[in-house]
Amino acid sequence: MNKLSGVYVVMTTPFKKDGSFDFEGVEHNIEYFIDSGVHGILIAGATGEFGVMSLAERKTLTEFALARINGRVPAVVGAISAQAEDTIEIANHAAKHGAEGVMILPPPGAGLDDEEIFQFYKQVNDNINTAIMVYNNPGSAGVDIGIDLLCRLAELENVDCVKESTGDIKRITEIRGRLGNRLGVFCGWEDMAWESFMAGASGWVCVCANFAPRMAVDLFNKTAIEKDHVAGLEIYQRLLPSLRVLESGKLIQATKAFQNARDIKGGYSRLPRLPLSPEAEKEILDVIEATKIN
Amino acid sequence: MNKLSGVYVVMTTPFKKDGSFDFEGVEHNIEYFIDSGVHGILIAGATGEFGVMSLAERKTLTEFALARINGRVPAVVGAISAQAEDTIEIANHAAKHGAEGVMILPPPGAGLDDEEIFQFYKQVNDNINTAIMVYNNPGSAGVDIGIDLLCRLAELENVDCVKESTGDIKRITEIRGRLGNRLGVFCGWEDMAWESFMAGASGWVCVCANFAPRMAVDLFNKTAIEKDHVAGLEIYQRLLPSLRVLESGKLIQATKAFQNARDIKGGYSRLPRLPLSPEAEKEILDVIEATKIN
Amino acid sequence: MNKLSGVYVVMTTPFKKDGSFDFEGVEHNIEYFIDSGVHGILIAGATGEFGVMSLAERKTLTEFALARINGRVPAVVGAISAQAEDTIEIANHAAKHGAEGVMILPPPGAGLDDEEIFQFYKQVNDNINTAIMVYNNPGSAGVDIGIDLLCRLAELENVDCVKESTGDIKRITEIRGRLGNRLGVFCGWEDMAWESFMAGASGWVCVCANFAPRMAVDLFNKTAIEKDHVAGLEIYQRLLPSLRVLESGKLIQATKAFQNARDIKGGYSRLPRLPLSPEAEKEILDVIEATKIN
Amino acid sequence: MNKLSGVYVVMTTPFKKDGSFDFEGVEHNIEYFIDSGVHGILIAGATGEFGVMSLAERKTLTEFALARINGRVPAVVGAISAQAEDTIEIANHAAKHGAEGVMILPPPGAGLDDEEIFQFYKQVNDNINTAIMVYNNPGSAGVDIGIDLLCRLAELENVDCVKESTGDIKRITEIRGRLGNRLGVFCGWEDMAWESFMAGASGWVCVCANFAPRMAVDLFNKTAIEKDHVAGLEIYQRLLPSLRVLESGKLIQATKAFQNARDIKGGYSRLPRLPLSPEAEKEILDVIEATKIN
Repeated sequence: MNKLSGVYVVMTTPFKKDGSFDFEGVEHNIEYFIDSGVHGILIAGATGEFGVMSLAERKTLTEFALARINGRVPAVVGAISAQAEDTIEIANHAAKHGAEGVMILPPPGAGLDDEEIFQFYKQVNDNINTAIMVYNNPGSAGVDIGIDLLCRLAELENVDCVKESTGDIKRITEIRGRLGNRLGVFCGWEDMAWESFMAGASGWVCVCANFAPRMAVDLFNKTAIEKDHVAGLEIYQRLLPSLRVLESGKLIQATKAFQNARDIKGGYSRLPRLPLSPEAEKEILDVIEATKIN
Repeated sequence: MNKLSGVYVVMTTPFKKDGSFDFEGVEHNIEYFIDSGVHGILIAGATGEFGVMSLAERKTLTEFALARINGRVPAVVGAISAQAEDTIEIANHAAKHGAEGVMILPPPGAGLDDEEIFQFYKQVNDNINTAIMVYNNPGSAGVDIGIDLLCRLAELENVDCVKESTGDIKRITEIRGRLGNRLGVFCGWEDMAWESFMAGASGWVCVCANFAPRMAVDLFNKTAIEKDHVAGLEIYQRLLPSLRVLESGKLIQATKAFQNARDIKGGYSRLPRLPLSPEAEKEILDVIEATKIN
Repeated sequence: MNKLSGVYVVMTTPFKKDGSFDFEGVEHNIEYFIDSGVHGILIAGATGEFGVMSLAERKTLTEFALARINGRVPAVVGAISAQAEDTIEIANHAAKHGAEGVMILPPPGAGLDDEEIFQFYKQVNDNINTAIMVYNNPGSAGVDIGIDLLCRLAELENVDCVKESTGDIKRITEIRGRLGNRLGVFCGWEDMAWESFMAGASGWVCVCANFAPRMAVDLFNKTAIEKDHVAGLEIYQRLLPSLRVLESGKLIQATKAFQNARDIKGGYSRLPRLPLSPEAEKEILDVIEATKIN
Repeated sequence: MNKLSGVYVVMTTPFKKDGSFDFEGVEHNIEYFIDSGVHGILIAGATGEFGVMSLAERKTLTEFALARINGRVPAVVGAISAQAEDTIEIANHAAKHGAEGVMILPPPGAGLDDEEIFQFYKQVNDNINTAIMVYNNPGSAGVDIGIDLLCRLAELENVDCVKESTGDIKRITEIRGRLGNRLGVFCGWEDMAWESFMAGASGWVCVCANFAPRMAVDLFNKTAIEKDHVAGLEIYQRLLPSLRVLESGKLIQATKAFQNARDIKGGYSRLPRLPLSPEAEKEILDVIEATKIN
């Protein structure tokens, strides 16, 4: 059985206008996510803008968030780095402070082959003691973890699940055919969530739970747990316009705009990300209104 | 309600070694398909090698096949052409001889824009009186029929359904969200069939029914009609190795090799297609054996 | 030494509003092209809308054009077809009426492998007696003729040159490195012409010569023959805005609009192609004016 | 006039087997590069494996290399980072220790739009005082710096040149057409070097100069300076087999293998990169032998 499953909100990091952390916002959001029934929280992922934080800042944020979560729901920490040493350091720090697992991408942009990727994960696996969510996102990493490599990774002791961000539904069927329940599959493509649950995904690293956590959880529960596909589809069709906005290019700023419009603490993004244009902000308000996100 | 639904075998055309039609083979296969329970038959599609037939030959084959089918199951005729006049001629010929519908691709390679594609279909629609299956296959046509264009096409009187060959599962959800049941959706991607039925596809233009029609029909019935997804998946996982062979580059020759290995009349392909290598033939026999296709 | 070289205008086919050939227009344009110094004329290529002509019409147009050209410049006839028999018929008809060569694409959309493509060309080669221009256009054919296959094709008796439409300049260097002068290389990408001549291309299947033949010929002569790259670049920079318009999606209609604006007989396109929008027409007039095409 | 031009070897960083810097190797290579006539040296680029160095290590290496170069040839330092603060810190450190410029990629993987990329470069530009080489590599950065954005960047005071790694030769012509000599263009695609010089590139961020510096310099001088294209092409055709090896997937390890085979100090790569297979090593020795790299 996999340790990780269900809807994990991959939380945005609210920054103040000057770029410093808005810790009150983080705390507010965590309470809101847990009240709304999310199954878990993912800290310092790409949506959380880890890319513009130093290693020290990632740890500070992680410690703060884990202390507030305080074991009420499991937490996963983003441990993406080009270097195994940093990944190991992040993972061990996260575990020490109560995280259930870490999400790990192959070293981005390094153009590694299968054996190099395997050895990277193995080196990390052998030096940590917490669940690993393998993150397969060819668009971010520049490499695709194919089924044969994934089967090798699944044999590493700490590997618990894969976050599928190829956008290809066939992968989920392929993974289940080769690995059955030995490896959990998290959906990692917002506007392919319902299809992924139908195909057997057991979790969702979910961006829209930042602003519509109850709907996200309902969608998952109805579709993946209760197998009520019609009810699931009804929720999904209501969510879809917002999911398509997210996947259309400005994922982080759009998520924060959705949050700010609903009194959740999206706050600002750090540079180099700039605020949305007024037209894009307006589109987001229209989507909330038209699709009755609540 | 759509006129067309269910598993339509897109039948291969058995040629003799000299390139002439093997009419006995065609007849044999049609009896076999109908005995096996297929819901319909598609004549002279790409799998049927229409591309290496003259217009006269396409008509000859169509007349022959329709006479043998004799209304026992509905038939659709491939009416792909770069010119609306030919498409209309094929469609009216097919209807006169008993076809239920025609499958129409945008003029391949012409680089048309949405308005031009719409006018092409409209011109055809206005001059025929049989159901149209819109064929969206960007890999073949060089253009993608997006959702807005599809919604316009759906308003043409004869348009009954779309064959979805983009390989993107999200399209089916999008079509259902915009068009509900006004437009049928046929799966047109062999190794994405189960996922497509789960997402709501109402039919399958099916290559593998050429050699495994009962399994194809079972897969569809269990998944799309009885909503028994687990049973559907079990059949699908058995079929998948063969479907992946089909989609891996030599669809027509591989289909015929599967047929010939099972005493169905695949026969030869016309030039420029060459027979499979002995290694590829061997792989096909292994897949039949290992996956218990029957 | 290759038979074919220099600037071959791939002439548009002027249609009347009702879709019939404007033979006077064809004649007018041929005189204009020859007066302007083009090295050759290509009849019934994709730019000439062969895709919406019957085989009989292609022959009619070819006979008419060849009679008017009357040997004053060499002519090549487009012999693109999915079937070797048609290709052979077109080639032998063209040769009989005075063509110097034929342009042949691999059977479009057939998904052939290298051996099948080779056998297709070989079958044609063995049944004709006129120069073959191999047309490598992965965007149109769906397959790419790589260097190893091209080297095999170059050994066929009638193969004289390749029209390079991959958009990858490195191919020209690769071809020259492997084949030296045994195979001519025609540029087949309008807005990469100067770069192609710099890299050693010996010819140009040229769309813009339909409306700017003198500039096209000057560009070629200065760059490829006189090796005066600076003078060549100066002409090219003037031509480029029009070439970019051509390559931006509406090649045929844009070419005809350029012609009609300059009293050359572009005429109408056949359906399914529709006329340009007034805005697109206006852009073309602006480009002519701003870049002093004369 | 641009400050930077000519062949800049983007030097590998020789590591010992335990992953520590081989400073003697660095020193040895710098002497060899300068003796061989390279026009400049690029420190801590992607080829130099900056991705597996900490910020402190990048500075250590930079200081060491700049001290050894000691102004004999200009040096550029890789300042790639997801954060403007780090980029600024690296740039100012490099300038203080004698670098002529820095190479800057848009924040990789951040999915920024043109305005965000511009503001990123502007923020860096406004806080440093050394030449900027804009690095356009869509494969690494996930975004493409189009011509309009490049024209805006060219107006920033420190922006001196662009390293073109799109693989599209037309870009060089486009840049020259819009910016003339206001912006230098460095080739950043090994097996498109000669074509780039023909098209007007004024420099080369050159990997193969790590093991064939004299040939690289000769190729540039003959082609770009003396305009002797035939002599340039002759050298290029000899170099090409090695350049193709570099661009075929294992650029760093292959470069080091070329170096080690020629008594230059390639040393080891850091993890996660693994050594080449014996077969790949053998291929490299064969290429050196067959193409007479000296």
